[in-house]
Amino acid sequence: MGNRDYACPPSDVQRVAIPPPQPFIKSLKYSLKETFFPDDPLKKFKNQPASKRLVLGLQYFFPIFEWAPQYTLQFLKSDIIAGITIASLAIPQGISYAKLGNLPPILGLYSSFIPPLIYAMMGSSRDLAVGTVAVGSLLMASMLGREVNYLQNPNLYLHLAFTATFFAGLLQASLGLFRLGFIVDFLSHAAIVGFMGGAATVVCLQQLKSILGLQHFTHQADLVSVMRSVFTQTHQWRWESAVLGCCFIFFLLVTRYFSKRQPKFFWVSAMAPLVSVILGSLLVYLTHAEKHGVQVIGELKKGLNPPSVMDLVFVAPYVGTAIKTGLITGIIALAEGIAVGRSFAMFKNYHIDGNKEMIAIGTMNIFGSFTSCYLTTGPFSRSAVNYNAGCKTAVSNIVMSIAVMLTLLFLTPLFHYTPLVVLSAIIVSAMLGLIDYQGAIHLWKIDKFDFLVCISAYVGVVFGSVEIGLVIAVAVSLLRLLLFVARPRTYLLGNIPNSSAYRNVEQYPNANHIPGILILEIDAPIYFANASYLRERITRWIDEEEDRIKDTGKTSLQYVIMDMTAVANIDTSGISMLEEFKKTVDRRGLQLVLVNPGSEVMKKLNKSKFLDELGHKWIYLTVEEAVGECNFMLQTYKPNQMKDESQGWNNV
Amino acid sequence: MGNRDYACPPSDVQRVAIPPPQPFIKSLKYSLKETFFPDDPLKKFKNQPASKRLVLGLQYFFPIFEWAPQYTLQFLKSDIIAGITIASLAIPQGISYAKLGNLPPILGLYSSFIPPLIYAMMGSSRDLAVGTVAVGSLLMASMLGREVNYLQNPNLYLHLAFTATFFAGLLQASLGLFRLGFIVDFLSHAAIVGFMGGAATVVCLQQLKSILGLQHFTHQADLVSVMRSVFTQTHQWRWESAVLGCCFIFFLLVTRYFSKRQPKFFWVSAMAPLVSVILGSLLVYLTHAEKHGVQVIGELKKGLNPPSVMDLVFVAPYVGTAIKTGLITGIIALAEGIAVGRSFAMFKNYHIDGNKEMIAIGTMNIFGSFTSCYLTTGPFSRSAVNYNAGCKTAVSNIVMSIAVMLTLLFLTPLFHYTPLVVLSAIIVSAMLGLIDYQGAIHLWKIDKFDFLVCISAYVGVVFGSVEIGLVIAVAVSLLRLLLFVARPRTYLLGNIPNSSAYRNVEQYPNANHIPGILILEIDAPIYFANASYLRERITRWIDEEEDRIKDTGKTSLQYVIMDMTAVANIDTSGISMLEEFKKTVDRRGLQLVLVNPGSEVMKKLNKSKFLDELGHKWIYLTVEEAVGECNFMLQTYKPNQMKDESQGWNNV
Repeated sequence: MGNRDYACPPSDVQRVAIPPPQPFIKSLKYSLKETFFPDDPLKKFKNQPASKRLVLGLQYFFPIFEWAPQYTLQFLKSDIIAGITIASLAIPQGISYAKLGNLPPILGLYSSFIPPLIYAMMGSSRDLAVGTVAVGSLLMASMLGREVNYLQNPNLYLHLAFTATFFAGLLQASLGLFRLGFIVDFLSHAAIVGFMGGAATVVCLQQLKSILGLQHFTHQADLVSVMRSVFTQTHQWRWESAVLGCCFIFFLLVTRYFSKRQPKFFWVSAMAPLVSVILGSLLVYLTHAEKHGVQVIGELKKGLNPPSVMDLVFVAPYVGTAIKTGLITGIIALAEGIAVGRSFAMFKNYHIDGNKEMIAIGTMNIFGSFTSCYLTTGPFSRSAVNYNAGCKTAVSNIVMSIAVMLTLLFLTPLFHYTPLVVLSAIIVSAMLGLIDYQGAIHLWKIDKFDFLVCISAYVGVVFGSVEIGLVIAVAVSLLRLLLFVARPRTYLLGNIPNSSAYRNVEQYPNANHIPGILILEIDAPIYFANASYLRERITRWIDEEEDRIKDTGKTSLQYVIMDMTAVANIDTSGISMLEEFKKTVDRRGLQLVLVNPGSEVMKKLNKSKFLDELGHKWIYLTVEEAVGECNFMLQTYKPNQMKDESQGWNNV
Repeated sequence: MGNRDYACPPSDVQRVAIPPPQPFIKSLKYSLKETFFPDDPLKKFKNQPASKRLVLGLQYFFPIFEWAPQYTLQFLKSDIIAGITIASLAIPQGISYAKLGNLPPILGLYSSFIPPLIYAMMGSSRDLAVGTVAVGSLLMASMLGREVNYLQNPNLYLHLAFTATFFAGLLQASLGLFRLGFIVDFLSHAAIVGFMGGAATVVCLQQLKSILGLQHFTHQADLVSVMRSVFTQTHQWRWESAVLGCCFIFFLLVTRYFSKRQPKFFWVSAMAPLVSVILGSLLVYLTHAEKHGVQVIGELKKGLNPPSVMDLVFVAPYVGTAIKTGLITGIIALAEGIAVGRSFAMFKNYHIDGNKEMIAIGTMNIFGSFTSCYLTTGPFSRSAVNYNAGCKTAVSNIVMSIAVMLTLLFLTPLFHYTPLVVLSAIIVSAMLGLIDYQGAIHLWKIDKFDFLVCISAYVGVVFGSVEIGLVIAVAVSLLRLLLFVARPRTYLLGNIPNSSAYRNVEQYPNANHIPGILILEIDAPIYFANASYLRERITRWIDEEEDRIKDTGKTSLQYVIMDMTAVANIDTSGISMLEEFKKTVDRRGLQLVLVNPGSEVMKKLNKSKFLDELGHKWIYLTVEEAVGECNFMLQTYKPNQMKDESQGWNNV
């Protein structure tokens, strides 16, 4: 082990290796594999007969074939309980969210019937409960509403919603098929917290319409427009509606609080929306409140989903809106579905393949758009109920689907008298749970930049629109990545006492400075975006060091050691920068020394002849060795003997 | 120094420090300073009296006050020679480029009069020769031409060109003032090589019009349109024009080749364009070729620049085009000017402040737009001539400016008979020098991705348009940065024999594997964009290691050591990933060990309580120490004694 002294002869040093050249095709193949197949999904297909491969392929796309053979009666019991629980949540929420999307309420039920069945076959999560989501519904309403008025042209609006769902599904499935799932990763957790909070706020604001019993309301979703709309018509407020709404919100919040405290009674909060609907309907039916300003759902058509393949709109002015809406809602829905699936998979310690999930969610939306459903995904609240209710497999989705089917066939007339204000109360109570202010505080404490991402997404959604918020969130997140590359940190290293390690002197104030030697660490790849900055910054380090030496009158600076451990890669701009920097350093009479460049960097430095310029002897494996050699030179330095040494520090 | 043996007791280990908490404002200030003031421009203002500060400030914005006092007669002699040389190049080039931009030829002379004077006062480069550029002229023609036809509405077109120049200057100066110069860095060298090559190709193609003597020509700039335009009117080709053009191109290329070989005779190629113009004009004058299909410049107005402040267009439909054109041409011109200034500064070993240069170039364009000039910057070819001619300071620009002034006052009638085909020949010969195919080959050899950036910029410009090429180049460059963060490399480390260093086993095939311990290195910050990928990739490393152990039957895996040296930063998504990963590792009966997290990472791990979860004892300063301790545990491992150890590897 390396216990050489400072002033050792420059002999038995381990050299930094230049990796052997690889054929271009091979390294391209490797990069493509790491980019698109990091999880190596084809591993189990290797060395298998064709029939086995077919079975494995079928199991890949339809995980139901994987788990169905092991399914037990015990599982069925748990899944039935979970399925009925989520159905009782899905029915009122489905109707509410469809109203939020300005769609016929029955669509909420349709969407809880077909998509869960498809997901049960194709999805790999055991806990995801499929259904419509508030944010997606709101986005549909606001994006489609800009093109078509849902009151004047309800049919076209409906068909556009199906078309948007179709494109959302197409996008989701293609992302999965082409292994581009990592695009979803660019929506950071912080962005999603802010975005969801903003969307929830906006959705709650929209509910003021039904809660205050207003007839006219703004079509804008931002805070300013809604507040103006609410406070310009104070004389229109209906106190009956408001009282009813507040009571139900209170009831729902209390049950949620109770279930949170007592996880055993998860069903209390899960059943509360259905109970509210029943109570509200009864109340209206008995008091004839619908004639006193309390709006009700009205007639709901009995029967299962009608087909809607022929309703998809592919004609010029509308298809553009549908595609745009589909892309944005599709990405948002996907991000939520994948995140929810992953978190529950983590709790139960099984693996979720993101790309496979995307194919499942995408297929379910494509088929949904053919059967009168609109955008579905795996909402967090419903999946959490499913998980708490003890679901074992995706069979709970099938049970929910059957329960919804029975409702569609027989129970729709019961919703005739359901007051809209109850639906609003259900939405508000669900949305309040999405405003994760504690999450935002946590972000602030740990990472200020993440907080900035979160808060700008929130402000963008609340004061601008959902799309603006989304764009801001992604832009700020990307800015962070770009800033990281454009402005990498550089550190001054010192020797940790009683150790061969050299570390950042800011973090380790006891680290020792080595006279005559400046040791720097660069913390990022050297790319075009930071090459100029790094040149300036490193030059400043040298200037500051020389100023310091001038003040203290110690050994003059002779060596600049750059620890390249963290420099993962370099491009041609980076190499030009190093070449220029070497010239500058030479001119100042200093010797540049590199430590531990990685394989990529060594390969490129070698190809670009920079290694020859610098001299391979000035590249060391560890800072310790480099310092050892430099010290040896410094101590045995005699001008006449050293003529063969680099011109750099000879002409000091 | 650390020469502990493998099986040492876990006692005298140097701990990884958690940096003391800093007030938010202080770290924000530090980040802002590093982002916007990495070169510390205010350093010299510190501790100075107010009067001195004023002088320094004046010198900052007008470097002429800095160097003028030291100006000598010797310098003047050199500068006069250089100035006359570049003037003889500037006059024909200026006229040619103005024609290229569909502007009155006289504008080319105007633009070589006022802007160089301003730059001489404000610029910090000693070698930059100011003037118009071909690419900028072409861009103006194509972008403004889309809004206004220069033949039908020449006045409006001209005024829009001034307005675009004004906005270009405004953008350039603001980038400099607000210290946003690093935006230009995002145009990588590779992108510029491809972009310039593509633009040069497109400009050459445009010259086919005058060289073939065609009357009608496409307004598109892409290869396909131009080729179609040329080959659909073969019957219109004029051989007189073509012969003349080819002769002059040949003459110009031969002189360039000669001057390149014999740098002493730099003036041969510098004078060649002027000689061509004189020869061509004489030829036309004597043979009356203008009556036989050879187009000539015609009347040029005598006199200096008329003011054009009142011509700037700020009305609705046009100002948008002007702003867009200004932004794009401004950025391109800036990138060229800064790059040229920097490279010559490097040759002569003086420093150029990018932000200061931007203010200078921006101011010169703003004032240019007030005095009938259009977009100017520091073109490479002219600056190279200036440098070769031995210029000492920016006075050579003043000399050029005076020469152009004299031309404007007395010599413009001489250009009446100058054939357009000579101007085309001048443009073609200048453009051929911009197609840097050797540069592209160099990129291919060293960095395939840079080559991709370059070639896609080229293809985008040649087959699409200049803007498309620019957007593609920036997008592909950014994609590289994002891919770097999204798909960081992870390496397996091994012990280098006879050393305490642990390095990538791919680069050092002789590095030794330590039984029972998996050592990984992560080569990028852990951010939202790569957290999922890293979790999957590291899990795959563990799976592969366990498979390997199963096959060979060696010591089972007990420790996973992650070297965090290169992990410069982490965000909340990254921390969640680590938390999840730790749970997974625990569940598999492994112990997670971190090595050398940097100060940022330690701070955040501490705040997020991850340190408490992991146990501070599982974080080491060096891989050597971590391996030493793990080995100690492995060797002295007895289940009963170790009850107080982490649950992780207890329940193996």
